[in-house]
Amino acid sequence: MTLAQYVARQQKRVDEALERWVPPAATLPESIHKAMRYSLFAGGKRVRPILCMAAAEAVSDSPAGIESCASTLELIHTYSLIHDDLPALDNDDLRRGLPTCHKVFGDAIAILAGDALLTLAFQVLAQMDCPADRKIALIGELSTAAGTVGGMIGGQVCDLEGEARHPDAALLESIHRAKTGALLRASLRMGAIYAGADPEQLGALSCYGEHVGLAFQIVDDVLDVEQSSEALGKTAGKDAEQHKITFPAVYGLQRSRAMAEEERLAAHLALRPFDERAERLRELADFIVHRRA
Amino acid sequence: MTLAQYVARQQKRVDEALERWVPPAATLPESIHKAMRYSLFAGGKRVRPILCMAAAEAVSDSPAGIESCASTLELIHTYSLIHDDLPALDNDDLRRGLPTCHKVFGDAIAILAGDALLTLAFQVLAQMDCPADRKIALIGELSTAAGTVGGMIGGQVCDLEGEARHPDAALLESIHRAKTGALLRASLRMGAIYAGADPEQLGALSCYGEHVGLAFQIVDDVLDVEQSSEALGKTAGKDAEQHKITFPAVYGLQRSRAMAEEERLAAHLALRPFDERAERLRELADFIVHRRA
Repeated sequence: MTLAQYVARQQKRVDEALERWVPPAATLPESIHKAMRYSLFAGGKRVRPILCMAAAEAVSDSPAGIESCASTLELIHTYSLIHDDLPALDNDDLRRGLPTCHKVFGDAIAILAGDALLTLAFQVLAQMDCPADRKIALIGELSTAAGTVGGMIGGQVCDLEGEARHPDAALLESIHRAKTGALLRASLRMGAIYAGADPEQLGALSCYGEHVGLAFQIVDDVLDVEQSSEALGKTAGKDAEQHKITFPAVYGLQRSRAMAEEERLAAHLALRPFDERAERLRELADFIVHRRA
Repeated sequence: MTLAQYVARQQKRVDEALERWVPPAATLPESIHKAMRYSLFAGGKRVRPILCMAAAEAVSDSPAGIESCASTLELIHTYSLIHDDLPALDNDDLRRGLPTCHKVFGDAIAILAGDALLTLAFQVLAQMDCPADRKIALIGELSTAAGTVGGMIGGQVCDLEGEARHPDAALLESIHRAKTGALLRASLRMGAIYAGADPEQLGALSCYGEHVGLAFQIVDDVLDVEQSSEALGKTAGKDAEQHKITFPAVYGLQRSRAMAEEERLAAHLALRPFDERAERLRELADFIVHRRA
């Protein structure tokens, strides 16, 4: 199976899990469930769930039910996009090539749809089929990674408040370590925990997750400068316009690309304790750095 | 100990638990932790945590650590108030006698502070000291009660969309069963589960919670009509102004007061399987119905 075929298969598994866990669009009150599904099924690449599942597969042969656990990362990621796009935050009209949730459903429903996806993530983790002690470890991981202290919300706050400040390497790294890095790292850790990783495996996959997370963000920033809105499916050039602190703003494009490559190699190095079962993780690191959109 | 002394002691326990679990205001990024603490420590009555703790005490003698579990109900309640008060939703400037979170910190931080309190609730449940299987049951209860299907967010959506519709008894009940009832019912159930209730006790406390929840909402609606903003600490008369569906709007004030009294008696009846250990719950039902603010 090629990587493209593998990714397509995993995306399908994640989409099927989301389909099972998210209430049908016809469930009352309809508007909130339509809004949740609109943003969830708007063509997301499922990067975090796919990394989660690949980590679990590196630890154990085809861990049953991992797609439910993995889908909670997409619930959190999608809630954060809906809230980030609101007029009070980034005020973005376009996401994944479609109008953003609040443009279609209004600000009130968009706020509540984000809240609902966040809440649902923990409901799924509590209700999925998995031993209770592992579920508790997974809920601890996800809530910490999504939180304010070194987590996603904390990074989002630093990012908002950083718009007014001079781009600076230390600030840049601290923002991205929290804003996107924490959830990407948690994706790997959750897959590992779900599959019953030993401490060495968990440490190695955390390390891989940190490097891949940083690479992912650098490439995102570079693509925002290089690519058109059409290719990205979101408003390009928005970072510079909003004076966001980005890798190209601090290091320039050429050095940023070299840094992404360094992170890719470091991610490979982190996987040295693993045999060929981690091959998909190696391919995914390459794909994340070499993608064009 | 009088009820007033008991309530004051329990409020203190809840506040101490919140103080322990919520990051200090000086933790980076400061603005989000200040905003979370501003709304959490703005004089809330801690009704839900106190009901949770009283339910646990009805099942077991002084269950250790219950205040952490109980405090998660206040985290959820406070997040919902912050988001409800936003300009995109109820657009309220005053809450518990103080400017609302978004008036002090801006809409962006208010949205993120709500998200952070919601996330923290599940982090506390995952990290508190309690057997894993009970924690999973508690997380399932809270996430369902706070969710879209018969839960708090679902009720909020119906409430928003109901503003345009004719006040109707069935709609009114379905809104409040979800919007405030689900979390109040969960408060009792979580206390019961934490303390290791048997199925009969859990059923009885759920039933008590439903009646007390309905009584609480009826009295809230009545007070919104009868009392001044000063006495309530929030903008009075707002329900009628926004054409909210309320008990006085559907049934009139006199019938609404009689209904609250019926719910109070039904709550007492639900507690018949319990001995004097449920006495505080009986007193709390009386207090909720007879309060003047």
